[in-house]
Amino acid sequence: MRDIGIGLIGSGYIGKTHAIAYAAHNAVFGGPARPVCRALAEIDQQKADQEATSLGFKRGTGNWRDLLDADDIDVIAIATPNALHKEMAIAAIQAGKHVYIEKPLALDATEAEAIINAYEAQTTNTNPLVHMLGYNYLCNPMISVAKTMIDSGELGEIVHFRGRHNEDYMASPDVPFSWRCSRTAAGTGALGDMGSHIIGMAMHLAGPASSLSGDTTTVIQRRKDHTGTMRTVENDDQAQALVRFESGAMGILETSRIALGKKQGLAFEIVGTKGSIEFDQERMNELRLYEANAPIGRAGFKTLLVDSSCPDFGAFCPAPGHGLGYNDLKIIEVNRLMKAIVAGAPVPVDLYQARDIERIIDTWITSAEQRTWLNLD
Amino acid sequence: MRDIGIGLIGSGYIGKTHAIAYAAHNAVFGGPARPVCRALAEIDQQKADQEATSLGFKRGTGNWRDLLDADDIDVIAIATPNALHKEMAIAAIQAGKHVYIEKPLALDATEAEAIINAYEAQTTNTNPLVHMLGYNYLCNPMISVAKTMIDSGELGEIVHFRGRHNEDYMASPDVPFSWRCSRTAAGTGALGDMGSHIIGMAMHLAGPASSLSGDTTTVIQRRKDHTGTMRTVENDDQAQALVRFESGAMGILETSRIALGKKQGLAFEIVGTKGSIEFDQERMNELRLYEANAPIGRAGFKTLLVDSSCPDFGAFCPAPGHGLGYNDLKIIEVNRLMKAIVAGAPVPVDLYQARDIERIIDTWITSAEQRTWLNLD
Amino acid sequence: MRDIGIGLIGSGYIGKTHAIAYAAHNAVFGGPARPVCRALAEIDQQKADQEATSLGFKRGTGNWRDLLDADDIDVIAIATPNALHKEMAIAAIQAGKHVYIEKPLALDATEAEAIINAYEAQTTNTNPLVHMLGYNYLCNPMISVAKTMIDSGELGEIVHFRGRHNEDYMASPDVPFSWRCSRTAAGTGALGDMGSHIIGMAMHLAGPASSLSGDTTTVIQRRKDHTGTMRTVENDDQAQALVRFESGAMGILETSRIALGKKQGLAFEIVGTKGSIEFDQERMNELRLYEANAPIGRAGFKTLLVDSSCPDFGAFCPAPGHGLGYNDLKIIEVNRLMKAIVAGAPVPVDLYQARDIERIIDTWITSAEQRTWLNLD
Amino acid sequence: MRDIGIGLIGSGYIGKTHAIAYAAHNAVFGGPARPVCRALAEIDQQKADQEATSLGFKRGTGNWRDLLDADDIDVIAIATPNALHKEMAIAAIQAGKHVYIEKPLALDATEAEAIINAYEAQTTNTNPLVHMLGYNYLCNPMISVAKTMIDSGELGEIVHFRGRHNEDYMASPDVPFSWRCSRTAAGTGALGDMGSHIIGMAMHLAGPASSLSGDTTTVIQRRKDHTGTMRTVENDDQAQALVRFESGAMGILETSRIALGKKQGLAFEIVGTKGSIEFDQERMNELRLYEANAPIGRAGFKTLLVDSSCPDFGAFCPAPGHGLGYNDLKIIEVNRLMKAIVAGAPVPVDLYQARDIERIIDTWITSAEQRTWLNLD
Repeated sequence: MRDIGIGLIGSGYIGKTHAIAYAAHNAVFGGPARPVCRALAEIDQQKADQEATSLGFKRGTGNWRDLLDADDIDVIAIATPNALHKEMAIAAIQAGKHVYIEKPLALDATEAEAIINAYEAQTTNTNPLVHMLGYNYLCNPMISVAKTMIDSGELGEIVHFRGRHNEDYMASPDVPFSWRCSRTAAGTGALGDMGSHIIGMAMHLAGPASSLSGDTTTVIQRRKDHTGTMRTVENDDQAQALVRFESGAMGILETSRIALGKKQGLAFEIVGTKGSIEFDQERMNELRLYEANAPIGRAGFKTLLVDSSCPDFGAFCPAPGHGLGYNDLKIIEVNRLMKAIVAGAPVPVDLYQARDIERIIDTWITSAEQRTWLNLD
Repeated sequence: MRDIGIGLIGSGYIGKTHAIAYAAHNAVFGGPARPVCRALAEIDQQKADQEATSLGFKRGTGNWRDLLDADDIDVIAIATPNALHKEMAIAAIQAGKHVYIEKPLALDATEAEAIINAYEAQTTNTNPLVHMLGYNYLCNPMISVAKTMIDSGELGEIVHFRGRHNEDYMASPDVPFSWRCSRTAAGTGALGDMGSHIIGMAMHLAGPASSLSGDTTTVIQRRKDHTGTMRTVENDDQAQALVRFESGAMGILETSRIALGKKQGLAFEIVGTKGSIEFDQERMNELRLYEANAPIGRAGFKTLLVDSSCPDFGAFCPAPGHGLGYNDLKIIEVNRLMKAIVAGAPVPVDLYQARDIERIIDTWITSAEQRTWLNLD
Repeated sequence: MRDIGIGLIGSGYIGKTHAIAYAAHNAVFGGPARPVCRALAEIDQQKADQEATSLGFKRGTGNWRDLLDADDIDVIAIATPNALHKEMAIAAIQAGKHVYIEKPLALDATEAEAIINAYEAQTTNTNPLVHMLGYNYLCNPMISVAKTMIDSGELGEIVHFRGRHNEDYMASPDVPFSWRCSRTAAGTGALGDMGSHIIGMAMHLAGPASSLSGDTTTVIQRRKDHTGTMRTVENDDQAQALVRFESGAMGILETSRIALGKKQGLAFEIVGTKGSIEFDQERMNELRLYEANAPIGRAGFKTLLVDSSCPDFGAFCPAPGHGLGYNDLKIIEVNRLMKAIVAGAPVPVDLYQARDIERIIDTWITSAEQRTWLNLD
Repeated sequence: MRDIGIGLIGSGYIGKTHAIAYAAHNAVFGGPARPVCRALAEIDQQKADQEATSLGFKRGTGNWRDLLDADDIDVIAIATPNALHKEMAIAAIQAGKHVYIEKPLALDATEAEAIINAYEAQTTNTNPLVHMLGYNYLCNPMISVAKTMIDSGELGEIVHFRGRHNEDYMASPDVPFSWRCSRTAAGTGALGDMGSHIIGMAMHLAGPASSLSGDTTTVIQRRKDHTGTMRTVENDDQAQALVRFESGAMGILETSRIALGKKQGLAFEIVGTKGSIEFDQERMNELRLYEANAPIGRAGFKTLLVDSSCPDFGAFCPAPGHGLGYNDLKIIEVNRLMKAIVAGAPVPVDLYQARDIERIIDTWITSAEQRTWLNLD
């Protein structure tokens, strides 16, 4: 089996998720290729060495550019703060590496376009570069089931999509000012961090949006930074938008980082003309289904539990209801990457789709400023 | 105990709910006054007599104007299709009767103003007329608890209100064209029928709105009427709006009459800076509460079941969790009416608040046409 | 329509539920007879008069035996502490009245037999007496649906019944010693009060039991009475039993009055060879159904909401999901009584079935003492 | 970091779970030792080689006894059908290997004693052997939270434990006769397979049992084997027992392999004098808590979501509610094994506790035959 050398930049929260997924991938899927953890880049050599040992990488480096020239690195995985993505992604692409970039792709659509330009200049038919974004929630087998229900017509015509990704990690005014609160470091707030997830989910399931009317607010307007200095928060705590999809369906999208009680609150409800579905990532192994054609007195929302009829699940466990966890979604995503590299299979979200998500975010903010609906091109 | 003579116009779905509530009121509350079912008006004498017998009214009449002159009638209750409200309400007020009008108050805010004008011309300090709208969901003890949590500051500052009232009674394309589909008979569609409920709930809990951006669609654009003729549906199947409240809080309001699977789908989630609450009328005896100040590891949404600490509940049953039903909300509403008549107590929704709901609906539709935010005066 | 004169003994918790149900019955069901609240008996004339006024009875009496001779009383409804049932029921029957007795029928099966003996001595083919017990949970439309599913074979052969009725009204050691703690006044503890409900439910749905192995405990063994004297609790706080039904199905029955968090905790799960159902009275308008024959990937527990396809529901409201409350079950039960009186229709639980419930309770206690299985005759 | 050589026997369902856990362990926990997948034993060399490659083991062998002499093997992990455990475990122990044995330990308590005897003959203070059973559900962080709540007194005195482990993998009569249906190959049926889990959970949380009254049934008494021959099922489809714990608490235990709709139906409810908790493995990242001391009107079951305050969780993900999956429990269990080997830490279930579980199962069956309560020694 072919080994795929991984160079990972960043060993924080999501970097560790990468490491776990690379390690577990082959015991779960048994192929079609083996990700091999070759190098981990961190902010300095000492931290890099320490994390490489802990997370199972062969070597560490304090300079991420070392990965560009390394012959044993096939994929550069970027798990760093948002503002660094553009430079790293372009450099990786220009070095001829496949890229696996954590969402959001960039600070805005302009940056996203620059990455795409670099990609288009570098990739060739004979030597195509794989480009995959880390939108791991899309890899959930229950989401695959939802997509099948929609694409097959089982739910009829989709007429409404209501989605939100709300959490409460910044609900306390005592949470300090961090890079997430800075427009230059993070771009948007809840909108880029979690809004990108629910936008991606909406596009995945309900298709492209044609217009929107957005709104945003910053509720906790000042926070102390780690030095104790009070600073102005520069981006949104809450954002919401009315959406029209190209299909004509209506939608509502919402995100918040101050929604007390929500911990992994990516949830949606989709209404079709033949059925409805409901999903909540906090119960990620369940999908609720209402079938309009049920017999009289026997119609109701049905809670489907994940089982081996759902894509990807059987690789983890043959037993129904023996659910997956958050980290397992990353294992599936890594499997998508392996299939893309060795077999040219499509990925859940590529640079173009990620760019479209950035465009929606940009338009959302402009719409909120102009207090009007805007079309998406 | 004082008897309050009731004259009810309309014996359909909601008219029957009135009849049950009047009958049960005194066994439940024991006062402060006794509603006495004196006369029932229906479309003709025969139906009126039949329904009067069935629903426990002393007499029937095929002419609702008979109620205006009847000395034994103190309250005229209007439970007829929307387009009839204005004429009936004005006539009742001008006859010096208290009015108890089912929602929505009227077809639009202009009609609502006309009713208010009639009221203001008629009522006097010495002989004040009571005017109450039938927004029975607001009478739920769990809603009273929610309001107490908000008004007392228990939830902190409210920063978000997400509400919907979705049902699926017109989801099937085989549901025939009826007065509900006609702009002249019903005014708006889902928006007036159920949207008025969620708007009323939002105002009750989160206070007045200052601006909104609305959207509406008619998904099933043609339906057969009872003669088999295909007719064009003239009002909305789905409607949604972004809202800003005067408090600065953001909100989302939504309604649908084609949301497959929802049967009594009035639900909301409110985020405050100290806690969050969630409610779903399909589980109307529950309120979910998240308290930000819970100890580490002991925070989570808590399901409160109705008990005698909740307003009004103890009159029904002393035992906690021995829940109320939909009809019980009407009994509480009738009790509010009795208290207003004998003691001048405030009602949940009066003509002015009902007019404000109509204004929001009107603005919602205009906003949808203009594709822009609009301020509410 | 025929008037049925009601004489009610007892105006406490359940007595008030009776009063509400009599008052509301005709507006809901419109027939086949009209219960008329003629007399209310209480412990003295003053309380009787006061409660008669409050609950809508024409007169009050401090002597329940006054009801026996009253020509305008057709039904004597007994809503008093358990130890009084036998004497009152026998006297009512001997006076030729129909009886409507709150559960449990008596302190034990011996008392129950005495009541049956009186009944058999009094009733005649030409003048049959109606005898109905107040097991109102059985009147829930969702329970009727469950019974239909079982009786029709929709669930296949029933192989397991797990039921409990747990509440927490005596969970606090500060709840005082009351008649409920006394063997002479209440008989058993949780077992008679709530265990009788879950036994009745099991018999209603899974049929007669053939043998059982029981257990009981008194957890809080001493409580202060209202004078502050510490007294020994004489009956069970918790009871549980393994059961075999005549069908061969296995079962588990359980009850507790100290189960913290349960407020109206009558719940069951039934497994058949073609499907399973689950019910919880705290969500009394729902029934969860699992159908074994669902397509692959589309099997799951489905939450049915009450609607007009469910027996009795349509009389309350035509709209699906507009749920019933606890008191509404009593209205349905009163309707059963009316139908039994005017049309000889069967009642949910009669004296014989109530006697069987008492036998199970007696056997349960003996089994617990002997630490062995016992057969039920 | 120390490498711990693993030799795994069996690559079926649970064997693969082992492989995934060994692979992922260090990226998750970073220590205190590294499990290294050295050898995989299967029924023949070909299958062994194939699975070794797929699951990431260095070599395969068709003879499990090869592991006994291998110097690079520290732990022998036994993931084979129940009837093979005794021989393999004794051989592994006698070869001086640590053992990690999947539940149930053996076919009955007599076999379990034989394994213990071998262990006691082999282990020494200077060279202690680690012995751990695979009861992975006990490793769930939410179960650790539950145990902390109980051990700390937060729930008060435990007065009731109701537990079940029900699934439906043999609900269909078309499921063929397999080794699981054979008394010689599997021992008991649902009782050994899943009953052992809920017994283990009960002992873990409520402490040792002192007596029980059990019952068992075989509902589907005949099944076709893979040759099409109809054979008699030799063990239980359903089993249930009343239990008394040494503490005096009451309990109910239940298991079924034909409980339609249950997929990973290990669930329990525990009542204490200060609070209650509820858990369902199908929602394994949640624990429901009722606190008796909540303020009036603010008491209710609270759904706790897993977060970094819960033992072990933080190693997987820092973000609350980003739940674990079934396979993650095995990673935690492997971490327990590593800590036991390098630091002598206690394991969740050792040979002695596993033997006690077998004793309870044996007693349960005897009690069912004798129709009486039996004491546990």
